[in-house]
Amino acid sequence: MIIQKEITLRARSRGFHLITDEVLNKLPEIKEVSKGILHVFIKHTSTSLSINENADPSVRRDMETYFNRAVPEKDAHYYEHTLEGTDDMTSHIKVTIIGSSVTIPVTNGRLNLGTWQGIYLCEHRNYGGAREIVVTLYGE
Amino acid sequence: MIIQKEITLRARSRGFHLITDEVLNKLPEIKEVSKGILHVFIKHTSTSLSINENADPSVRRDMETYFNRAVPEKDAHYYEHTLEGTDDMTSHIKVTIIGSSVTIPVTNGRLNLGTWQGIYLCEHRNYGGAREIVVTLYGE
Amino acid sequence: MIIQKEITLRARSRGFHLITDEVLNKLPEIKEVSKGILHVFIKHTSTSLSINENADPSVRRDMETYFNRAVPEKDAHYYEHTLEGTDDMTSHIKVTIIGSSVTIPVTNGRLNLGTWQGIYLCEHRNYGGAREIVVTLYGE
Repeated sequence: MIIQKEITLRARSRGFHLITDEVLNKLPEIKEVSKGILHVFIKHTSTSLSINENADPSVRRDMETYFNRAVPEKDAHYYEHTLEGTDDMTSHIKVTIIGSSVTIPVTNGRLNLGTWQGIYLCEHRNYGGAREIVVTLYGE
Repeated sequence: MIIQKEITLRARSRGFHLITDEVLNKLPEIKEVSKGILHVFIKHTSTSLSINENADPSVRRDMETYFNRAVPEKDAHYYEHTLEGTDDMTSHIKVTIIGSSVTIPVTNGRLNLGTWQGIYLCEHRNYGGAREIVVTLYGE
Repeated sequence: MIIQKEITLRARSRGFHLITDEVLNKLPEIKEVSKGILHVFIKHTSTSLSINENADPSVRRDMETYFNRAVPEKDAHYYEHTLEGTDDMTSHIKVTIIGSSVTIPVTNGRLNLGTWQGIYLCEHRNYGGAREIVVTLYGE
């Protein structure tokens, strides 16, 4: 069984955001999968996906702090690709570090995540707008 | 064909460790797959998975050196999420950089890795304990 | 349906390169897949794969600039694994940051990428030579 659909996620502010519930709400078919995989792919080059801590909002804020220090906009003078603003090339870099998709096991109709894991949308642009993802669920 | 199982990996010290053999020992079914994919997912937010050099232990030590410099614990004052110690938020950050799963082709009953590739468990906590992974093998 | 093949990519210079067309030219079977997934895996520990901006070559040059600053060869004295040159351990580190594979949804016979997305081969060695990838296409 393969289920695939495109989902438009509501716009988020710059930063790291939990989207597990928003994804699952659009995917009731997951209940029919006893064992399989969910692939979540984001169709943008300034926004990335990750799996991380789902409980304490300070973790998501600290992620934003870290990545802004690791890929600083004040270093824009090192880059050629600057026409779209200082948050553009830095966003592309963060995407290549973090990644454009996550793949998660599905077991007995549920995502088989650890207790403390959730799906992060990492919005690297100041004004990113709504974002498109493609979810592909395959299994039996 | 889909085979899925949860495996408890023995505790490792902080650092980068080869786990290819420990995973394969728990997965004799791989011999039955002529072409497919193996997905390995770790159910923790302080430990990551990667594919890298399988021969020289100094590569794994240098990885630990690099990531401790790139995500330094002495920067803990930049973070809010510090209650669990200076190795906690830095571990979450390393997980988002490195990733929570790896996906590897399976060909003729074996992982189709390059000669020098192996699966790394990257233990970022000082005392991480045993770790749970979910392996999903699908193919024909 | 599962299609799997090994492809030798022509040698590229050190840096970030778009390989979407070279991969698709070797995979005409993708036209037969109405929904599925393409997994692309690179069998080397000094070269990585990513998804990023497909239009402006300056983005790929800025990626090279960034990663050379984030993982500098002048820091070779921090590392033990230096026998193969200053571009060797730094290449392994970049691979663990960026990753050894990408997974992309396939829809109606085409890669379901965003308008601005393409597949990057990230060649981290000065003289990397031809590179082997394994593509696994599964779907219906």
